[in-house]
Amino acid sequence: MNGRIRLGMVGGGRGAFIGAVHRRAALLDGMYELCAGALSSTPKKSLESGRDIGLPDDRIYESWEQMLEQELKLPEERRIEAVSVVTPNHLHYPVVKAFTEAGFHVICDKPLVHTSQEAEELVRLCEEKRTVCAVTYTYAGYPMVKQAADMVSSGVLGNITKVMVIYLQEWMLAADDKDLWRADPERSGISGAVADIGTHGEYLISLITGLQIDQLCAEASRALPGRQLEDGADILLRFTSGARGLITVSQACAGEENGLHVKVFGEKGSLSWQQENPNYLFYAPLGQPEQILKRGNDYLCASARSSSSLPHGHPEGFLEAFADIYRNAGKAILSSRGGVSGEKRGFPTVREGMRGVRFVEKVIESIKQDARWVKMD
Amino acid sequence: MNGRIRLGMVGGGRGAFIGAVHRRAALLDGMYELCAGALSSTPKKSLESGRDIGLPDDRIYESWEQMLEQELKLPEERRIEAVSVVTPNHLHYPVVKAFTEAGFHVICDKPLVHTSQEAEELVRLCEEKRTVCAVTYTYAGYPMVKQAADMVSSGVLGNITKVMVIYLQEWMLAADDKDLWRADPERSGISGAVADIGTHGEYLISLITGLQIDQLCAEASRALPGRQLEDGADILLRFTSGARGLITVSQACAGEENGLHVKVFGEKGSLSWQQENPNYLFYAPLGQPEQILKRGNDYLCASARSSSSLPHGHPEGFLEAFADIYRNAGKAILSSRGGVSGEKRGFPTVREGMRGVRFVEKVIESIKQDARWVKMD
Amino acid sequence: MNGRIRLGMVGGGRGAFIGAVHRRAALLDGMYELCAGALSSTPKKSLESGRDIGLPDDRIYESWEQMLEQELKLPEERRIEAVSVVTPNHLHYPVVKAFTEAGFHVICDKPLVHTSQEAEELVRLCEEKRTVCAVTYTYAGYPMVKQAADMVSSGVLGNITKVMVIYLQEWMLAADDKDLWRADPERSGISGAVADIGTHGEYLISLITGLQIDQLCAEASRALPGRQLEDGADILLRFTSGARGLITVSQACAGEENGLHVKVFGEKGSLSWQQENPNYLFYAPLGQPEQILKRGNDYLCASARSSSSLPHGHPEGFLEAFADIYRNAGKAILSSRGGVSGEKRGFPTVREGMRGVRFVEKVIESIKQDARWVKMD
Amino acid sequence: MNGRIRLGMVGGGRGAFIGAVHRRAALLDGMYELCAGALSSTPKKSLESGRDIGLPDDRIYESWEQMLEQELKLPEERRIEAVSVVTPNHLHYPVVKAFTEAGFHVICDKPLVHTSQEAEELVRLCEEKRTVCAVTYTYAGYPMVKQAADMVSSGVLGNITKVMVIYLQEWMLAADDKDLWRADPERSGISGAVADIGTHGEYLISLITGLQIDQLCAEASRALPGRQLEDGADILLRFTSGARGLITVSQACAGEENGLHVKVFGEKGSLSWQQENPNYLFYAPLGQPEQILKRGNDYLCASARSSSSLPHGHPEGFLEAFADIYRNAGKAILSSRGGVSGEKRGFPTVREGMRGVRFVEKVIESIKQDARWVKMD
Repeated sequence: MNGRIRLGMVGGGRGAFIGAVHRRAALLDGMYELCAGALSSTPKKSLESGRDIGLPDDRIYESWEQMLEQELKLPEERRIEAVSVVTPNHLHYPVVKAFTEAGFHVICDKPLVHTSQEAEELVRLCEEKRTVCAVTYTYAGYPMVKQAADMVSSGVLGNITKVMVIYLQEWMLAADDKDLWRADPERSGISGAVADIGTHGEYLISLITGLQIDQLCAEASRALPGRQLEDGADILLRFTSGARGLITVSQACAGEENGLHVKVFGEKGSLSWQQENPNYLFYAPLGQPEQILKRGNDYLCASARSSSSLPHGHPEGFLEAFADIYRNAGKAILSSRGGVSGEKRGFPTVREGMRGVRFVEKVIESIKQDARWVKMD
Repeated sequence: MNGRIRLGMVGGGRGAFIGAVHRRAALLDGMYELCAGALSSTPKKSLESGRDIGLPDDRIYESWEQMLEQELKLPEERRIEAVSVVTPNHLHYPVVKAFTEAGFHVICDKPLVHTSQEAEELVRLCEEKRTVCAVTYTYAGYPMVKQAADMVSSGVLGNITKVMVIYLQEWMLAADDKDLWRADPERSGISGAVADIGTHGEYLISLITGLQIDQLCAEASRALPGRQLEDGADILLRFTSGARGLITVSQACAGEENGLHVKVFGEKGSLSWQQENPNYLFYAPLGQPEQILKRGNDYLCASARSSSSLPHGHPEGFLEAFADIYRNAGKAILSSRGGVSGEKRGFPTVREGMRGVRFVEKVIESIKQDARWVKMD
Repeated sequence: MNGRIRLGMVGGGRGAFIGAVHRRAALLDGMYELCAGALSSTPKKSLESGRDIGLPDDRIYESWEQMLEQELKLPEERRIEAVSVVTPNHLHYPVVKAFTEAGFHVICDKPLVHTSQEAEELVRLCEEKRTVCAVTYTYAGYPMVKQAADMVSSGVLGNITKVMVIYLQEWMLAADDKDLWRADPERSGISGAVADIGTHGEYLISLITGLQIDQLCAEASRALPGRQLEDGADILLRFTSGARGLITVSQACAGEENGLHVKVFGEKGSLSWQQENPNYLFYAPLGQPEQILKRGNDYLCASARSSSSLPHGHPEGFLEAFADIYRNAGKAILSSRGGVSGEKRGFPTVREGMRGVRFVEKVIESIKQDARWVKMD
Repeated sequence: MNGRIRLGMVGGGRGAFIGAVHRRAALLDGMYELCAGALSSTPKKSLESGRDIGLPDDRIYESWEQMLEQELKLPEERRIEAVSVVTPNHLHYPVVKAFTEAGFHVICDKPLVHTSQEAEELVRLCEEKRTVCAVTYTYAGYPMVKQAADMVSSGVLGNITKVMVIYLQEWMLAADDKDLWRADPERSGISGAVADIGTHGEYLISLITGLQIDQLCAEASRALPGRQLEDGADILLRFTSGARGLITVSQACAGEENGLHVKVFGEKGSLSWQQENPNYLFYAPLGQPEQILKRGNDYLCASARSSSSLPHGHPEGFLEAFADIYRNAGKAILSSRGGVSGEKRGFPTVREGMRGVRFVEKVIESIKQDARWVKMD
C-alpha cells in the first residue's frame, strides 16, 4: 500500500449514527486515516466530537468552510485528499460542490442532493476536476447483492419479467416530526421516505438488473396526520424492456426494523435477497429445487468473493457492506494520485446519485398528480 | 350428529385437482357423505370419474341438468341436500342458480361468477330460498388467519395503517394458454390472475381487518406476449378509514409455488402470515420482541382453537383449511334442516362472493384506464 | 376400487387425540369405512364415543373381547377385515395377538408392545396367519422423508458418516404424572420418552439410511424429581458400517412442541428435515449451494410424488402423513383379499415394531449401567 | 480517550485468516493501534506480511523472541503494551509466558495452551504480574449471547434443566491432513475438534448458564480413516445442579459452514441462538408465544445494548463479536495503565482458558475409556 488516504469528515458529530458508520467503514481495511473534521454545526460540539475520535485539535474545524480553507494551506502531503460528507441532506450540495471544486475527492451520503439541477452540476464538476465522488448506497456493498447482479447479467435468469423491492422500517411511526430533520422539507427536500429509502430500491434494481425505468406511477402515504413529507409510497414501474416493477417503502410500519427485500423474477428463475440476513441469496431455477447461495463460498462470482473477507459461516453485516463502498472508492482515489483519472467502478458514483435524485423528483411528480404515469427522461 | 349431509358434486372429474380437494375436505370430518355427481362434461368421463370415487352408477349423471332433474324425483330423505360446484368458472352461474332455485344448498368454488349482475341475482335468490351458499375462499379456513382477524378486531394492533397482500405463483410462466381454460376469456371472464388469486387478497384483507376499499388503482402485467388475460397485477388500495393497501399478484413468477403473504400494520403492532407455513402467525408489538403464535396453543382465540383438530407441533395444512369451510357451511346447512334459516357465519358466503366479483370488475376498469383511481360503490 | 376395507377400532374414545387421528387418516382417501368399535374401557363411554362418530349401536362394543367374538359371528362380507389398535400401550399385546390369531389385519399404534418376547410372538403369528400388521410410525408417511430415503439409497450422499435425530417436546414439563398413563410403568412399560418418541428416531434412521445399529450408549434424564420413567435421553450410536449417530429426545423441553429434526451426513452431502415444516427437505451437496426440495414437485422421487395429493405450495401436514401409512397398509390388505399374501412394503410393519421394542430394551439396559456401551443383537 | 493501546502481534502473516480478524477487530473501535509484529515463522514472510499491513520496517521482527527483546529496549511510551498471539496452538504457551513475564498484556487465540499444567502456570503468572490475558472465545462477544446470559442469571427461565450445544463444520471432510497443523498432534495437542470448537461449547454453556460440569462422558469420531485426532465428538454432561447437557461437535459434516447452535431449557422457558444468524435470540416462555429478540433494541439488557453499535435491522456479525472481546480487554488494559489492576470482566480471561484446557483433557480421557463417565475436578 502506498500510504493511507488522508480523509476529512463533514458532519457526523456526537450522536450521529451514520457518521460513526462512515468512520468505522473507512478505517476497517486500513486504507484510510481520518485526519481532519468539521463534525458539527456548532464549534463546541465540533471540538468535543473531534476529540472523541482522536483528532488533533489543530485539525478539528468549526465549520466545513474553515476546514476547506485551512486544509488547502497545508502542504500537499499532509492535506486531506478526500472528504466524507455526512451532514443533513440540505448541506450535501454546497459541501460537495466546494470540496470538488477545490479538487478533493468526495464520499457523500445519500441522497446526493435535493434537485436534479444540483446533481447535474456536480456530475459536470466531477468530470471537469476528474475527482472521485462516491455515494454511499450501502447495500451495493453486500457480496450477495454483487452475486445477484452477476447472475442476472450472465443470463442465469433469462429475460427479467418483474422486480420487487419491499423496504419497510418502523422508526417514523412513533416519532415526533419536530425532532427530525428528515421530516422537515427545509432540510430534507421534497421527499421523505422516497428520498431516504426509495432511492435504495431504485439503485438496487438498476445495479442488479440493469433495467431502465421508462415510466412510473406512485402513491404516497402518511401514517401521522399533519406530517409534511410522505413516510411511505408504492411505486409502480414500467421498464423500457417491457418488464414491470414495484417499489414499496414505508418508514412507519410497526415491527419492521430495516426490512429491505429484493426479488427479481426472470423467465428461467428468480432471486430473493433480504438485507437483514444478508449472507444468503435465494435462487430458484425454474423446475428445480430452490438454492441457498451463501457468502464466502468458492461457487460465487469473483466480485462476491473479493468483497468479502470472512470465511463462510462467519456472518458479515452492514459494516462490511459499507466498508466495501469505501474500499472501492479508495481504490479509485489511489489510482488517481498520479494525476491519472481513477477507475470508477465497483461503487456508486455521482452519476448514480444524480439518477436517484431524478427518480425522487419523478415519484413526487406522479404522487402530486394522483398516481398518474410519469415518464423518466 | 343427526345424519350426514347428502352431497352432490358438479365438476371435479378425473384429473381435476380442486374437485378432489373439495371431496376430501367434505369427508374429513364425517359431516358429509358424497351421494351423487355429474363430474365431467362428457358422459363417459362422468361415469368413470364417478366410479373412481365409489358412487353407485344410478347416482352418476351425464350432466348437471340431469342430476338436478333426477335428484328432485328421489324421496327427500335420499335426495342430495347440497351440491359442490367445482366446474370451470363460466358454469358457476347457471349451476348455482339452478340448484339454488330448486332449494339446494351450494358450496361453490371461487370466483363465484363472472359479473356482478349475476352475483347480485344469486344473492337475491339465496335470500329468497333461504339456502346456504358458501364460496370456498380457502384461506379463510386457516386457524392462524382466524387468529389474525380476532387480534385486529380486538384492537391489539390499534388503528390499521397499511395492509399488504403478496400472492405469487409460477404455473402460468411456462404454460401454453391453449391448454388452459383459465387463460381463455370465454371460460374465465374478464380477468385472469386478479379473478383467480387477487380475489383471495381482497377477501383476506376484508376478513382480517374489516377495512372497506374506497378506491383502487391497478396495473396489469403479462409475462407472455399475446396472452389475452392478465397474469399479474399490482393493485393500490385506499380504504374508507384512510388506511392504505397493496395487493400484488402474479401467476408467472419463477420459483413461486403458492406464495401468499399477508402483512397487516397498525399503530400498535403488526401481523404477518404466510400460507406456505400456515401454522405460524408473526406478531410484532411496537417496541417489544416479535412473537410467533403457533397453531394449537391455548393462548389463541376461540375460533382459531376450534377450527383446528391436531395438537400443536403436528402441522396442519391446506386440506384442513378447506375442510373448515365445509364444516362451517355444514353447520349452517344442518341448522336449516328444520326449515329454520341457518346460521351463516364462520365461512365465506354468496355475499362475499359478490363482493369479490365487483372487486375484479373495478380492478379491470382501472387497468383499462391506465391505472386511474376507480371508486368502489 | 373393489369395495372399502371394513375397519374396527379398539380404543380411541372421547378425548383421545390419537384415536381421532387414526380415524381421519383411515377415512381420508375413502379406502376404509369404519364399521365397528370398542372405543373405551367403560361400556357407557364406549357407547357414547361410538355414537359420536356415527357407528350403529349394534356395532358398538363394550370391550374388545366382545367385539372380537361378535364380529366373528357376522357373515364375512359384513364382518370387519382390519382393526386399528389405539389403546394405551399395555393393551397392544393382547389385542393385537387376539385379532391376529383370528385372522384380522391390524394397524397398531406405536410402540408395538412392551417386550421383545411379545414382539417376536406377534411377528411369528402374523407370518403364520399371513395378515398385515402395520405400526403407525407416522413420520414414515411424509413425502419428504421418502425423498430423503430415496436420495440416500441412490447414493446421492455417498457413504453415510453421521446421523442425528433431535426430538424435543414440552408436554411432560408441567404435567402431573398421576394423570398420565405414559408416566406409569404399569401401562407404559420400562421406558417413557425413549419408547414414546425415541423409537421414532430409531425408525427414521433405519428408514432413511438403512444403517444398522451395532452398539449404543445412553443417558437418561428426568425433569421432575420422583418421576418414575425417563422423560429424556441422549443415545449415542455406533452403526455396523462405522458411521456414528446420536438420538436426543426429551419430553420436558420448554417451548418445544413436536420438534423432530433429522440430519443425515454423508461423504458427498447432507440432508436435513424438520417435522414441523414437513414440506421441505434441505439438501447440501458438498461444495455446492444448499437446496430446498419442496413437496409436490416433479423433480422428486416417485414415492415422494405418489404419497402426496396436493400440488406444491399447498401445505400438507401430519394428517396426510398418517393417512399414507393407512393407504399403504390398505393396499396390502386389499391385495390379500384373495387369500394371496399381500405386499407389505411402503409402511412400517410388525417387524419394524419388533425392532423398536428391542431398541428400547437396549437403551434402558445401557442407561441402567450408567451409559455403558451395549451391543444390539 | 487517553491514547490508543499500542499492540504487537505474533503470528497472523499472509494467508492466515484469524490473524486478519484479530487485527480488524482490534482496529475497529480505534482503541488499539498496531505498532509491531513478528507475523510469520520465516524472516522473509514476516517482513512481507508486516509491510502488507503498513508496519514500519523497524517494528517488523523476524521472531517473537526478537520482538520481545527489541521492544523492551524502546522507551515505554513507544513500546507495545499488549500482544496478540495468533500462532499455531503449540506456540501459545511459550509466547504468552514470555510476554506475560515481561509485563505485557496478552490477547491469545483459543485454545489457550495444550495442558492444564501450562494453563495453571499462566494463570499464576498473570496474577503475579497483574497483566490482562484475554482468550478470544469469540462468541462471547455477540450481543445476543450476552442477552441470553442476562436472562438466565435473572431467572427468566427458572432452574435450567438441559443445555444443548451443536457445533458442526464441514472443512475437515475433504481436507488432506498433511496440510493441516490442526490435524497434527505435534502442533495441536491431544485433541482436534474438541479443542478447536468443543471448547467454544464449554465456554458458552458456562457463560450463559453459569452451570458447572460435574461429570462428562464422551465418544469421538473420525470421518477419514487414519486421521490421528478426532474430527467430531458427542459429549454428555452432568452438571452439579443435576441439569443435563450435550455438546455435539464435528468438523466433517457436509454442508455445515460454522453451524453453532445453543439451546438452553429451563423450568419456565427456553432460549435458542444460532451463530450464523447472530442478531436474533429465540425465547419461548412456557405456555406463551415464542419471542424473537433482536439485536439493537431498547428492550434488551444493558450489556447486549452496549456491546452493539449499529441500530436494529442493520446486521452485525462475527467481526463485531470479535471486536467486543478486544474492546473489553482494552478497557481492562487502559484501566491498568496507572499500575492499578484492571477490571477483568466482560471478556474471557486466562482462567476461562484454563478451564477449557481441563475440559479438553477430561473429554479425551473419557473417550479413551470408551465413553466412561469422568469427573471434572
